[in-house]
Amino acid sequence: MLYVIGLGLGDERDITLKGLEAVKKCDKVYVEAYTSLLSFGLSSSGLSSLEELYGKSITLADREMVEEKVDDILSEARESNVAFLVVGDPFGATTHTDLVVRAKKLGVEVEVIHNASVMNAVGLCGLQLYRYGETISLPFFTDTWRPDSFYEKIQSNRVLGLHTLCLLDIRVKEPSLESLCRGRKQYEPPKYMTIGTAIEQLLEVEHSRGQSVYNEDTTCVGFARLGSKDQMVVAGSMKELLTVDFGAPLHCLVIVGKTHPVEEEMLEFYTLKEYLKSQKKT
Amino acid sequence: MLYVIGLGLGDERDITLKGLEAVKKCDKVYVEAYTSLLSFGLSSSGLSSLEELYGKSITLADREMVEEKVDDILSEARESNVAFLVVGDPFGATTHTDLVVRAKKLGVEVEVIHNASVMNAVGLCGLQLYRYGETISLPFFTDTWRPDSFYEKIQSNRVLGLHTLCLLDIRVKEPSLESLCRGRKQYEPPKYMTIGTAIEQLLEVEHSRGQSVYNEDTTCVGFARLGSKDQMVVAGSMKELLTVDFGAPLHCLVIVGKTHPVEEEMLEFYTLKEYLKSQKKT
Repeated sequence: MLYVIGLGLGDERDITLKGLEAVKKCDKVYVEAYTSLLSFGLSSSGLSSLEELYGKSITLADREMVEEKVDDILSEARESNVAFLVVGDPFGATTHTDLVVRAKKLGVEVEVIHNASVMNAVGLCGLQLYRYGETISLPFFTDTWRPDSFYEKIQSNRVLGLHTLCLLDIRVKEPSLESLCRGRKQYEPPKYMTIGTAIEQLLEVEHSRGQSVYNEDTTCVGFARLGSKDQMVVAGSMKELLTVDFGAPLHCLVIVGKTHPVEEEMLEFYTLKEYLKSQKKT
Repeated sequence: MLYVIGLGLGDERDITLKGLEAVKKCDKVYVEAYTSLLSFGLSSSGLSSLEELYGKSITLADREMVEEKVDDILSEARESNVAFLVVGDPFGATTHTDLVVRAKKLGVEVEVIHNASVMNAVGLCGLQLYRYGETISLPFFTDTWRPDSFYEKIQSNRVLGLHTLCLLDIRVKEPSLESLCRGRKQYEPPKYMTIGTAIEQLLEVEHSRGQSVYNEDTTCVGFARLGSKDQMVVAGSMKELLTVDFGAPLHCLVIVGKTHPVEEEMLEFYTLKEYLKSQKKT
């Protein structure tokens, strides 16, 4: 049996009882490392907080490993119980769909254990989840690669008055260009897009496309470390949010559409003014 | 402190470790009863499976109670730790946003503990969550009340090639018309919309509006008891899904938009043909 288990968003104690019971039944435990594991106290030096909780050793599975060794993982799962742990909910990313498809094709039984993902946890700020349009992903711009197909998607959402969740780029274990040229893989340090970079890129695209989809006065909500103890949620114009230091990753951003009174009431608690007030207190 | 804690979708063991620890710290525990608690083994006769797990008694809070006694709940939360348990994730429904807004206005500290909701768990069928448009709610039609404003929303989603999640009506503790006339409240038995009723209503609206937004050959995915052991996921045309008995509630429905190959590969496992094959085996 292959158990695909969501870990939730905060730390090791965000696993469900059902998820924990499943892990304890497993002979082999993998944790996907191609989104972010920062908040789980995982580092190159170890997976201690998770391993301690489960009483088992865990294998860190980066994208490369999952792609290369998927057959090994699946043949283990055919013979015994294997857990594949995923930050958030298992179906937040296409990669996990791939894994499940391959498992099912090989006749390996799959059980999915759900958890919170960023897609529902953003509900925290009061913007209703059913009022979101298509989710967009913002990639890091490079000198030569500045894709802006997200612009039309934001436009469609805004025409309909819908909110837009922007997922921000994460680059973990990217081979460096230099190392690729030399023929042996060396990796860039991990890179996480900040809300500041996201807003700068968004405004750059608005500037070049010029269809007034949004501007620096458009209300957004910035989220950092959603689901963690030190999470940060600040609502304000793009211009205002550019002045805020959201701290450590992960960040994500919501571009606010047309709001209802109950949504506005809740957003009031997260304005930049309220945030600065709360900072003074501590 | 008011802890607003998501219970997830399946049963009592879908609470997170963090959620369970919070409940154990609380002097008073409420569980909201205005969505569905069916799968949690809760009934009018008791809340046994949850109470046993928590080692505490739980107060069932229906909509009426929350609306009438919110001040009492919040003043308890000012003095002590109070847990408010919610099926799915706390921010799936507007009602919980209201509760949090009122708490914050009174200066009561609030901690939210997230969990899976139907909004992300539908990812199970392989349709990517970022390819969904606005979520719609389908209300039960009556002889005199047949609102169809969801039609334009489905249209907007389909024009953009996006999937549409349809949440189906739940009527719990609705006063009967007869009892209202007599001046004392008596309640209708709970009523949950089935996928069959949803599709019939959708087709009726298409028939009367006639803008070819969808038809009986449009591919959909029906979900019953999502997140439970006996969950059911079947993909097929509206016409095909009308022939399927999805069994006990809760049901929900996804109208499939434009699909990518990896989405199609996964949907293949859930076709009506596959479902009938799996039924023969058991």
